[in-house]
Amino acid sequence: MKKGDLQMKAILVNEDKSLRWDNVPNPVLTENEVLVKVEYAALNRADLMQREGDYPPPAGCPEWMGLEVSGEIVEMTDGAKAKSNYKIGDKVCALLGGGGYAEYVSVKYDMCMPVPKNCTMAEAAAIPEAFATAYLKLFVEGHAKSGDTLLMQAGASGLASVIIPMAKAFGLHVVTTVISNPENIKHLGADLVVDTRIQSLPEVLKTEEAAGRAIDIAIDCLGGQNLGDCLPYVKYGCRWIVIATLAGTNTNIDLKNIYKKNIRIVGSTLRSRTPEMKALILSNLVKEVWSRVESGEVKPTVYKILPITEAEAAHDILYRGENVGKVVLKVQ
Amino acid sequence: MKKGDLQMKAILVNEDKSLRWDNVPNPVLTENEVLVKVEYAALNRADLMQREGDYPPPAGCPEWMGLEVSGEIVEMTDGAKAKSNYKIGDKVCALLGGGGYAEYVSVKYDMCMPVPKNCTMAEAAAIPEAFATAYLKLFVEGHAKSGDTLLMQAGASGLASVIIPMAKAFGLHVVTTVISNPENIKHLGADLVVDTRIQSLPEVLKTEEAAGRAIDIAIDCLGGQNLGDCLPYVKYGCRWIVIATLAGTNTNIDLKNIYKKNIRIVGSTLRSRTPEMKALILSNLVKEVWSRVESGEVKPTVYKILPITEAEAAHDILYRGENVGKVVLKVQ
Repeated sequence: MKKGDLQMKAILVNEDKSLRWDNVPNPVLTENEVLVKVEYAALNRADLMQREGDYPPPAGCPEWMGLEVSGEIVEMTDGAKAKSNYKIGDKVCALLGGGGYAEYVSVKYDMCMPVPKNCTMAEAAAIPEAFATAYLKLFVEGHAKSGDTLLMQAGASGLASVIIPMAKAFGLHVVTTVISNPENIKHLGADLVVDTRIQSLPEVLKTEEAAGRAIDIAIDCLGGQNLGDCLPYVKYGCRWIVIATLAGTNTNIDLKNIYKKNIRIVGSTLRSRTPEMKALILSNLVKEVWSRVESGEVKPTVYKILPITEAEAAHDILYRGENVGKVVLKVQ
Repeated sequence: MKKGDLQMKAILVNEDKSLRWDNVPNPVLTENEVLVKVEYAALNRADLMQREGDYPPPAGCPEWMGLEVSGEIVEMTDGAKAKSNYKIGDKVCALLGGGGYAEYVSVKYDMCMPVPKNCTMAEAAAIPEAFATAYLKLFVEGHAKSGDTLLMQAGASGLASVIIPMAKAFGLHVVTTVISNPENIKHLGADLVVDTRIQSLPEVLKTEEAAGRAIDIAIDCLGGQNLGDCLPYVKYGCRWIVIATLAGTNTNIDLKNIYKKNIRIVGSTLRSRTPEMKALILSNLVKEVWSRVESGEVKPTVYKILPITEAEAAHDILYRGENVGKVVLKVQ
């Protein structure tokens, strides 16, 4: 491909926030990058926020959405050839700062991972963001270890479909929440599923604390007043990791809980991490988690595959909160 | 001294919360402990909370107050002799789980530090809690490094009188707050003193952020709504360390600030740390900070010395918030 040619297609956002599949400049490889011919791009909630203008891509990234893809390496810089074990034709999945909703994407070699045996290319596209996020939350921020109790909010979400089995594979006790039929996520293996349509989460945590199962780690994409209301019942030293605020951005906190129990409330987004930290997480994933993916203990859950030209319909699935697991776009 | 004899005196709390200097059992040395004949015991705000029944001493500690003392080693267990360089007659200061308001206290050898050259015994008593707390907050929780901006709340407090010079000695830019004459703390060397009687801290932080000096670390003994109101103006990755809530226990937080900027709100009390962590902090203090105490760069500020029999009058000074620096009791 020639630099700057208007050849490739990508999903662009119109002024009225609708989407179109349109021509854009081809990627230009910079140092240590490879060019991936995208087969599948997976959706993330951050895509919706970016579409609405609420979550701009980091500097140097394409303006179009897409945080993860699977595909084939079709071009390599000299740096990528020298520093990695990849070669042209390798199938990889990759974590992106943005730009995955396209026919091609350029990405540093250390943001790629080999496609695990036992995974389809559609499944592979659903791996990088969710698995790297899961690893960051559970192990880097959460310091998870066998025997810990984890509260994973929104058990039917794409992230939960990874974090719950990953936490179980590493020996944690897992509490999760749903606002739909708890049976839908039975296969994930959580120890306790709280249906917050009919149960109060703070009350459940109070009961669990009394039974010696106060939570060590919370991974919370909901926020809202529940956060403040749950803090009295968490364990000493609890890490409460805030990754989004789908249930509300405001919470009233009794700070006494914070300092008396050495609680830490940790804001954490993967996207804003340094490239070095992301590369470290991906490398740890391949080392520590890939064998568990290949054994089937932990796996990406693909809810639905749609053609890239139906990106808007795919987004609607996330807007409606209909999906259990990931929605994936087939590019080519 | 014979075990269990009612020989030694200590400060006890009467039912009406008044204090008396009365007989108590002598300390009984357990493994790795030394017996310190107390010369001075320094006051901490936690003593007031303990007196009011709000902050019970950890298991195994005497019921009487007192988190730090200076004095002379008068007895040593075999373990302490074998594992430490101390000998009978050494002058030390010590960090305690409790029990410092007394004629004698037993303490593990690794909770003692040599009295720095250049310090009186009264000053030495004012070192352990404040310096260990300062080290924990600044370096363990705060990951402070040269060039960082620190917000230290309550610049006239005992802790601030240590943290501000320590932060300056290690190359930080320091913002602090007062509700009294800013001139009173001029000698501490803060770069910016905010008089919150006439200035809004969130407004000041907004201005500082605009000038490229958003804070990296806050050490906050006030809490209250100011905490939530300041968060929009802190730097990406800010560590906001809550150590008390003198201005109010409740705060309303916009969680978007937390996760978008990877902020962490960290509850932190020294007293509840593991003995291993405390020993590590004390050992680091002697290694990294003692030379700066001996050079006079960082030093304990003793506001007033009263006899132990006037412990109640000494507490009143803290209740009134009158002191700049530490209040110390002379025991013998």
